[in-house]
Amino acid sequence: MRFSEKISAAAQTNNSWLCVGLDPDIGKLPDHLKSDPGAILKFNKAIIDATADLVCAYKPNSAFYESLGRDGWSVLFETIKAVPDYIPVILDFKRGDIGNTAAMYAKSAYEILGVDAVTVSPYMGNDSIKPFTDYADKGVFVLCLTSNPSAVEIQKQLLSKENDDISDPSMVYHHMAGLALKWNRNKNIGLVVGATSPDELKEIRDIIDDDMPILIPGIGAQGGDLEQSIANGSNSNGQMAIINIARGVIYADYSERFAEKAREAAQNYQQNIAKFSGKKR
Amino acid sequence: MRFSEKISAAAQTNNSWLCVGLDPDIGKLPDHLKSDPGAILKFNKAIIDATADLVCAYKPNSAFYESLGRDGWSVLFETIKAVPDYIPVILDFKRGDIGNTAAMYAKSAYEILGVDAVTVSPYMGNDSIKPFTDYADKGVFVLCLTSNPSAVEIQKQLLSKENDDISDPSMVYHHMAGLALKWNRNKNIGLVVGATSPDELKEIRDIIDDDMPILIPGIGAQGGDLEQSIANGSNSNGQMAIINIARGVIYADYSERFAEKAREAAQNYQQNIAKFSGKKR
Repeated sequence: MRFSEKISAAAQTNNSWLCVGLDPDIGKLPDHLKSDPGAILKFNKAIIDATADLVCAYKPNSAFYESLGRDGWSVLFETIKAVPDYIPVILDFKRGDIGNTAAMYAKSAYEILGVDAVTVSPYMGNDSIKPFTDYADKGVFVLCLTSNPSAVEIQKQLLSKENDDISDPSMVYHHMAGLALKWNRNKNIGLVVGATSPDELKEIRDIIDDDMPILIPGIGAQGGDLEQSIANGSNSNGQMAIINIARGVIYADYSERFAEKAREAAQNYQQNIAKFSGKKR
Repeated sequence: MRFSEKISAAAQTNNSWLCVGLDPDIGKLPDHLKSDPGAILKFNKAIIDATADLVCAYKPNSAFYESLGRDGWSVLFETIKAVPDYIPVILDFKRGDIGNTAAMYAKSAYEILGVDAVTVSPYMGNDSIKPFTDYADKGVFVLCLTSNPSAVEIQKQLLSKENDDISDPSMVYHHMAGLALKWNRNKNIGLVVGATSPDELKEIRDIIDDDMPILIPGIGAQGGDLEQSIANGSNSNGQMAIINIARGVIYADYSERFAEKAREAAQNYQQNIAKFSGKKR
């Protein structure tokens, strides 16, 4: 099954385009777990158990596991295994290298960790993307326009009309969206576009295919607007705008009731996403 | 001690600007090691023992360790520990993320693995670089112009003169070199520039400070010219052009004499680098 089919099926089953970010920070765990050596895995499993019927995907962030040291990879592996099979896992690792190195990263993610999709950084061009897209059944989310202030430094630079294939006006991120279309031979590319740029989200949705998913971080903690993001990021059927929430769900509460509170937060997001997606249709 | 001081001291001690890439591929190990579960660590230690007086740095490539699965992080950790203290270790992991995530990657590399420098990808701007440069004693090599064919797709796009701070003519990689200067508050940034672009290497060296190191992959297997790369990439003293060789050293031979042959290959590079650096001075 292709990634786009798997995430669409999960989204339909759970009536949800909510992706929960699994970014467990040992410093932010509930107090009763902090002294437990298996704390992060227990925390993740509790969050997954509490929210699995409310999401279309989970997105573990590799950095949070790597920072655990030698055991980090095992915790990540066990976290991925704890996700029900029908729900895709997007490994957020933003790698960007070429050739044999990119092939090794793809193998690590898709074959060893067994995830369904990854995030990658496009600075080196398609040589750094193709080793991932060659896995036709796996998804590849390419950074396009991010929600941080310094996104202007490269992503929002205006390109000269003297370049081949550059239409007017075109910034690096418009060009990146066009490249994604061109690289998409296996129909498994998606884009990462921050929620803090709703107008740009619409521009990007207008450049790409209707069935290309957009992974949208930046709602909540980073200030992006949910209704606008869905209106501008989803396709003509109100689909394929994947709203990622991490802190807003997993750190909804720091007491022993954290999982229950995470469920309430996830449910709130899921219902709002469903409502706003319905409006779009 | 700052990274630039540490690498300069190692370069002076060993009369070498050669960096050996530790990219161990289990499929390419000598036959007598292939059936050994600790093969990769043994291989790396043998390579380090055989070459430590010929290099200014080692550069393990994270992908090759991650692809080993759960044990990969331990092998990487032990490999880093096996490098003599006076020789800096550059972790090639090309991460590119922001905020808390970038801080976690920096912590993993600098505090947990204990490396002296990393490679990072700049697509998200300084928000993705600053969490690394904030470690003032550590080095940060930012991708600028890479040697792969699809580098043209983003790095060689011509920027419009309507952008602020863009001089004429300017491609994304020229702009990136300028950004590196601007971001370099702690004087710990270096650039990654592929050896297959000697003219562009000179352009970049002319943009940046004399004491900014350039990490130069792409000699040998990828076809870059050593003399040209040193002439164009080093500073006015014939310094700070770090020539990375991986396959040309570590896979010089596949027999039981692999370490001895790796030493011969490294010595050959070290002597040529010293000769060409001397010409430049």
